[in-house]
Amino acid sequence: MPSNERRYVIRLGCPDRTGIVARISGFLADAGGWIVEAAYHTDPATNWFFTRQEVRADSIGFGVDELRERFAAVAGELSPAADWSVIDTGVRRRVVILVSKEGHCLYDLLGRVHSGELDVDVRAVVGNHADLAPITRAHGIPFHHVPFPADPDGKAAAFAELRDLVDAHTPDAIVLARFMQVVPAQLCADWAGRALNIHHSFLPSFIGARPYHQAHKRGVKLIGATCHYVTADLDQGPIVEQNVIRVGHADSVADMVRKGRDIEKVVLARGLRAHLEGRILLHGNKTVVF
Amino acid sequence: MPSNERRYVIRLGCPDRTGIVARISGFLADAGGWIVEAAYHTDPATNWFFTRQEVRADSIGFGVDELRERFAAVAGELSPAADWSVIDTGVRRRVVILVSKEGHCLYDLLGRVHSGELDVDVRAVVGNHADLAPITRAHGIPFHHVPFPADPDGKAAAFAELRDLVDAHTPDAIVLARFMQVVPAQLCADWAGRALNIHHSFLPSFIGARPYHQAHKRGVKLIGATCHYVTADLDQGPIVEQNVIRVGHADSVADMVRKGRDIEKVVLARGLRAHLEGRILLHGNKTVVF
Amino acid sequence: MPSNERRYVIRLGCPDRTGIVARISGFLADAGGWIVEAAYHTDPATNWFFTRQEVRADSIGFGVDELRERFAAVAGELSPAADWSVIDTGVRRRVVILVSKEGHCLYDLLGRVHSGELDVDVRAVVGNHADLAPITRAHGIPFHHVPFPADPDGKAAAFAELRDLVDAHTPDAIVLARFMQVVPAQLCADWAGRALNIHHSFLPSFIGARPYHQAHKRGVKLIGATCHYVTADLDQGPIVEQNVIRVGHADSVADMVRKGRDIEKVVLARGLRAHLEGRILLHGNKTVVF
Amino acid sequence: MPSNERRYVIRLGCPDRTGIVARISGFLADAGGWIVEAAYHTDPATNWFFTRQEVRADSIGFGVDELRERFAAVAGELSPAADWSVIDTGVRRRVVILVSKEGHCLYDLLGRVHSGELDVDVRAVVGNHADLAPITRAHGIPFHHVPFPADPDGKAAAFAELRDLVDAHTPDAIVLARFMQVVPAQLCADWAGRALNIHHSFLPSFIGARPYHQAHKRGVKLIGATCHYVTADLDQGPIVEQNVIRVGHADSVADMVRKGRDIEKVVLARGLRAHLEGRILLHGNKTVVF
Repeated sequence: MPSNERRYVIRLGCPDRTGIVARISGFLADAGGWIVEAAYHTDPATNWFFTRQEVRADSIGFGVDELRERFAAVAGELSPAADWSVIDTGVRRRVVILVSKEGHCLYDLLGRVHSGELDVDVRAVVGNHADLAPITRAHGIPFHHVPFPADPDGKAAAFAELRDLVDAHTPDAIVLARFMQVVPAQLCADWAGRALNIHHSFLPSFIGARPYHQAHKRGVKLIGATCHYVTADLDQGPIVEQNVIRVGHADSVADMVRKGRDIEKVVLARGLRAHLEGRILLHGNKTVVF
Repeated sequence: MPSNERRYVIRLGCPDRTGIVARISGFLADAGGWIVEAAYHTDPATNWFFTRQEVRADSIGFGVDELRERFAAVAGELSPAADWSVIDTGVRRRVVILVSKEGHCLYDLLGRVHSGELDVDVRAVVGNHADLAPITRAHGIPFHHVPFPADPDGKAAAFAELRDLVDAHTPDAIVLARFMQVVPAQLCADWAGRALNIHHSFLPSFIGARPYHQAHKRGVKLIGATCHYVTADLDQGPIVEQNVIRVGHADSVADMVRKGRDIEKVVLARGLRAHLEGRILLHGNKTVVF
Repeated sequence: MPSNERRYVIRLGCPDRTGIVARISGFLADAGGWIVEAAYHTDPATNWFFTRQEVRADSIGFGVDELRERFAAVAGELSPAADWSVIDTGVRRRVVILVSKEGHCLYDLLGRVHSGELDVDVRAVVGNHADLAPITRAHGIPFHHVPFPADPDGKAAAFAELRDLVDAHTPDAIVLARFMQVVPAQLCADWAGRALNIHHSFLPSFIGARPYHQAHKRGVKLIGATCHYVTADLDQGPIVEQNVIRVGHADSVADMVRKGRDIEKVVLARGLRAHLEGRILLHGNKTVVF
Repeated sequence: MPSNERRYVIRLGCPDRTGIVARISGFLADAGGWIVEAAYHTDPATNWFFTRQEVRADSIGFGVDELRERFAAVAGELSPAADWSVIDTGVRRRVVILVSKEGHCLYDLLGRVHSGELDVDVRAVVGNHADLAPITRAHGIPFHHVPFPADPDGKAAAFAELRDLVDAHTPDAIVLARFMQVVPAQLCADWAGRALNIHHSFLPSFIGARPYHQAHKRGVKLIGATCHYVTADLDQGPIVEQNVIRVGHADSVADMVRKGRDIEKVVLARGLRAHLEGRILLHGNKTVVF
């Protein structure tokens, strides 16, 4: 059974009550659905139910449009507040990557795309510096250089240009791969649930600028990286994935920067993969990652 | 919702086919079952389906005996080869612990029992040395000293005595907390699926005696600990849980022994907890840990 | 070479310049000192030099008092600002442990003392609750119950009593093993460099009360524990050791509390061991841990 | 103090006795040497002493050739068996990388070279497949395709060609970045202490072919990666660095392969960095990694 076998991924969030699982699994059984993977969770604090079901596309006797139509009825019956979607893995997902000067996350993502591990369509890379244009173009991917001036008007214009470049691709994911610019609130809102950032600290420690300098000054014994959805509150968005690495008194800030890169790139790649596979369900400022 | 709220845990393994989830969740929905936690897995290599369902006991309109009776019909209908059980968390689980001289795992388990974290009935501790009698008895738990002679006959007699002491409690788990004696094949068979051992290496590395000495000699940079079910093949039983800790050239064998203890005790405690909560489903020589 | 072989541990911090290592190692060579372990560090930010040298006591032709006297001359010659000490491992170190209701750290420490891993003299355990008196006394260690009233005057009186109980033992380490009371500034000053606390978060995240609740609310994917020296600024003292453990959306606050304990106790034990072996050199609000 | 400041790295191994540290540090002090980093270790089992000293080049009043000449006298005086070397960080180190089809390690190394993190001269990449030629050449690095036939004669000829390509560069490191061919014993001998391999398991577990398949079959809960020096005994060379990552019952072999890559590339990069910085001292089949 190859991993690139076509599948439909059904995701649902709704108020919890008994019988939801039976209703959904009954629906899938009636449709002939061969469930490859199924996960459930209920958050007791908000009484919210979450599920993700992955079924073999060839086991369903009708197309994805009809699946969406039929499932809409089931979801509506479960709750008018139900939040659901169906992903068809037969349609390649579109990704736009935003970068600045530092290339470790971009290299890592391009390597994964090149090997086929990350089977996505990287539509474009946009950078406020041009340093990473050559490696991007060596992969046959368009690179757009949008310089970001320091003055507010120039910056606003740059963001407008950036938005147009990104939105033209209607991406499933916008990846801030060490982009280093604070995204305006309106753009955060428009890209809600689609823009993933990697922050180079173990959030909520060391929010904002120069987190490794902050970490060095505090004398921590572990440094971290956090992948989170971008929201208008800087570095406060829903956390998707985190990891840490050990440091010691002998590590300078430069050593921390170097060591930290090794977790930043892996944490971002894991977060992006989970996002694209529809494994992340958002609820308030928290994530369920199936 | 307190964590000690009474629950029924239904576990099932059987050949995979479509509709199993629908059948089980339909059964639970009909019984009014409030599912607190549900997990599924299919092993593609053997086409074996596994599930564990945890329901609130007070949501079911009948007792655990009737639940077992009714679920037996469902399981039989799904497959004559189905392997299933229902655990009632309202009945405290019985545990017997086997020890030798080293006390770190026993201390750790007794601390968890004392705090209520591990809500079990430790019926007895049996040791081939008496060193750990005082700490055991300080917790009001009977300690039995069964010396193990080096000669085969004496050892066989000791194991016979040990078995009687253990079996008298019909334990749900027999914990070899650094017991350091090779259990006879017949006893392994009789205790199959109930006896958990902690081995002080990252299995399958360093099987058998003095694993830290082997690790030191090989110059590894991480040492490990493995919790596994005891089988007749020494250190070859199904693996439940593992962890590692970093070591370096400056660590002597004694340092490795000391550092290793910190993972041994945690790995054993996690394995035991998973076992008692019915989270481990055995299939061949592998485990599914929900 | 047994690990309990008697050793002298020389620790020095002073402004950096060339020739310090040569001066100290020349001094030790002249004294016949067999160096078992040696470590050096210079902090470029403050230009401060740190060293720790461990020598076999039987290799030195004179006693520890004369070693101190002779080394004082060397240190004074290197810098009038030099901060140094000599530890004789032949003198057992004295420890007092402060507890509240939660016993996991105390159990862990007592287990290490019982096995000889932590070869110290636990002079007393003091608790603001009496829950842990039985396990303490089962080890032949005095337990003092000092209730802490909620009113400021009562609390001040309790701390005065606590201080007398502790100071009577002139302890080398005062261990706050989940003590849960904010220590007054004057006591922090008097115990500076000797009082170790375990905080149940990855500092500087989640300072203050109920860190697991804060962590759950923020939706982090790792929780942590931090061992640090106690200072007047709550949870802001020099960090000695940290570790983290993975959590997920399915973990309740109670699950986090349970999982967190497994790192709290190990982090505290490692920090205490490093402190007692003279491995920690303090400088400003940071530690060098050799 | 920039990290690319020129330094001399002095490494020495010899039989242990008192006074070695004093002799070396005295020598350095006399030469005006500003020690930036110093490390020592004695292996009690073999009574072998190891040290690594890093000094600022501009603090020494003479050149590296004279430093080598003068230090040779010191080393010879300490022991005729002394094994020592002096590295001048002002001379860029030469690296040749061997690859097959899998590109994750190569991508990772090229990214580090591009960013300047790994400040080395990658002279060439040699592959038994041509898949990674484009990414190599996009970095301006020559790629040589040397196909490896299955028959012994053809393979021997291919290795002869490979050796010529490699040796022409007199590399300081030969990196087997998932090269997947068993290197002949003679070549292992000729490249002793310079050829680094990444093995995709936690050695000594799962030696030889298809380690992830072996790991999946055994049902381990962690998979690993090991960087080691290449020797004639397959996967038995001195271990430099290791790491592990958690897996579970839901992970297929393909999942393990994917997850394993994330530790393989980091473990290899760390091992290579330590090698190039002269941090690894070999003794028998073990490493000291300062």
